[in-house]
Amino acid sequence: MITALGGGIIRDVIIASLPPATFRDWRYLAVAGAGALIAFGWGRKLDRLSFPIEVLDAVGLSLFAITGATKAMDAGLGPLPAVILGAVTAVGGGTIRDVLIGRVPTVLRSGLYAVPALIGAAITVVSLEIGLHGWIPALVAGLACFAVRLIGIRFDLNVPVPPGSPDE
Amino acid sequence: MITALGGGIIRDVIIASLPPATFRDWRYLAVAGAGALIAFGWGRKLDRLSFPIEVLDAVGLSLFAITGATKAMDAGLGPLPAVILGAVTAVGGGTIRDVLIGRVPTVLRSGLYAVPALIGAAITVVSLEIGLHGWIPALVAGLACFAVRLIGIRFDLNVPVPPGSPDE
Amino acid sequence: MITALGGGIIRDVIIASLPPATFRDWRYLAVAGAGALIAFGWGRKLDRLSFPIEVLDAVGLSLFAITGATKAMDAGLGPLPAVILGAVTAVGGGTIRDVLIGRVPTVLRSGLYAVPALIGAAITVVSLEIGLHGWIPALVAGLACFAVRLIGIRFDLNVPVPPGSPDE
Repeated sequence: MITALGGGIIRDVIIASLPPATFRDWRYLAVAGAGALIAFGWGRKLDRLSFPIEVLDAVGLSLFAITGATKAMDAGLGPLPAVILGAVTAVGGGTIRDVLIGRVPTVLRSGLYAVPALIGAAITVVSLEIGLHGWIPALVAGLACFAVRLIGIRFDLNVPVPPGSPDE
Repeated sequence: MITALGGGIIRDVIIASLPPATFRDWRYLAVAGAGALIAFGWGRKLDRLSFPIEVLDAVGLSLFAITGATKAMDAGLGPLPAVILGAVTAVGGGTIRDVLIGRVPTVLRSGLYAVPALIGAAITVVSLEIGLHGWIPALVAGLACFAVRLIGIRFDLNVPVPPGSPDE
Repeated sequence: MITALGGGIIRDVIIASLPPATFRDWRYLAVAGAGALIAFGWGRKLDRLSFPIEVLDAVGLSLFAITGATKAMDAGLGPLPAVILGAVTAVGGGTIRDVLIGRVPTVLRSGLYAVPALIGAAITVVSLEIGLHGWIPALVAGLACFAVRLIGIRFDLNVPVPPGSPDE
């Protein structure tokens, strides 16, 4: 439930939209709880479905990046803060989950995770800034985020590491 | 101090009761600081008192679950969010403490910790929903949380693990 | 960026100054991002500059402790909460960083880190309480924090450990 809801809670605290949406509408908690129960009961079988799960995860990443950036702009944040907050919304839940189970968050370790979220949020913010509203720019932003995330998984791309780092 | 105050700070941020009670009344900080100093100075001797400390911890868990759920209802949250927030209030401080010292939080590992908090919060919320106010329903909710927590310790009960898990 | 901005975000959430300053003025994000990029590109060379970096870190600690305590007083918090919040502002960013990379936070382990922040915040709060405003008391508070931090580094001082602790 924290994975699903943590990013949105951080976003709503930052933009002062309190109580967070998660706590104002019980359906967020119900959907996240139902998903968690499914994973709890059938987790071993879900292990075999890792690619479909990564695709769904990429869909979620895209949705969170776009809605996070949009809500940030609606709350009056400037373009750069809105892009950052969109990405934080998208990666925040998974980051808290990783911290709680004692792992260095995925977003800090490898793969492309924050990068597609930043791209999706940036397209969203640029669209809103030049006056493009509605579902078409949102779809473009979502597809861009989704595509970069899946390309990263498919070709095992990683964010660059600092020059001279042992991982280089 | 984080163990004592963390849960209430999270609760107050979520229900937009800011600054949190912890920072509005210096006595919260003073009591938590005094308790921390006692543990600092006499920690070795307190190790021998593990059962009384677990009982006091269960009292605290009950109080936090009930006050958290009650404040959530007063802030206009629905019943399901109020139950969740009551449990978060009760387990939040210890969870932050465990993260800071590099442990996977107790609440995620073993024993009954979130379960009694959820039971106490649920009884509180149902009582308020059916119009029962005052100290009698609060006492019932508190005793239920306390009893489930102590039964869990006494009989070494654990939350169920997912089917097929190595811990099963 | 979290190291630089995390403490101020916690402070602004606690005093209900939302959205946090970090998200209201894009220059905070830009400066922190530029610093992070420099560290990313020249990190290996910066390793050799550990003393100048520790001095700059002590300057930052002092600034955060003083501005945190001042903003807390301006927000109407009492003296003790304002001192605590000043110290939290100063050590919060580094603490979140350490948690994210899987380390027990420096502030909990060794050295004098919270102690100089508490001293700087306390001097700030006492000055404001007795009606001394402006840059002179702020400078005194900042120099005290800075000096205690550097003395701690120079003489390898540590906070006291509990009696009977294995680290004693």
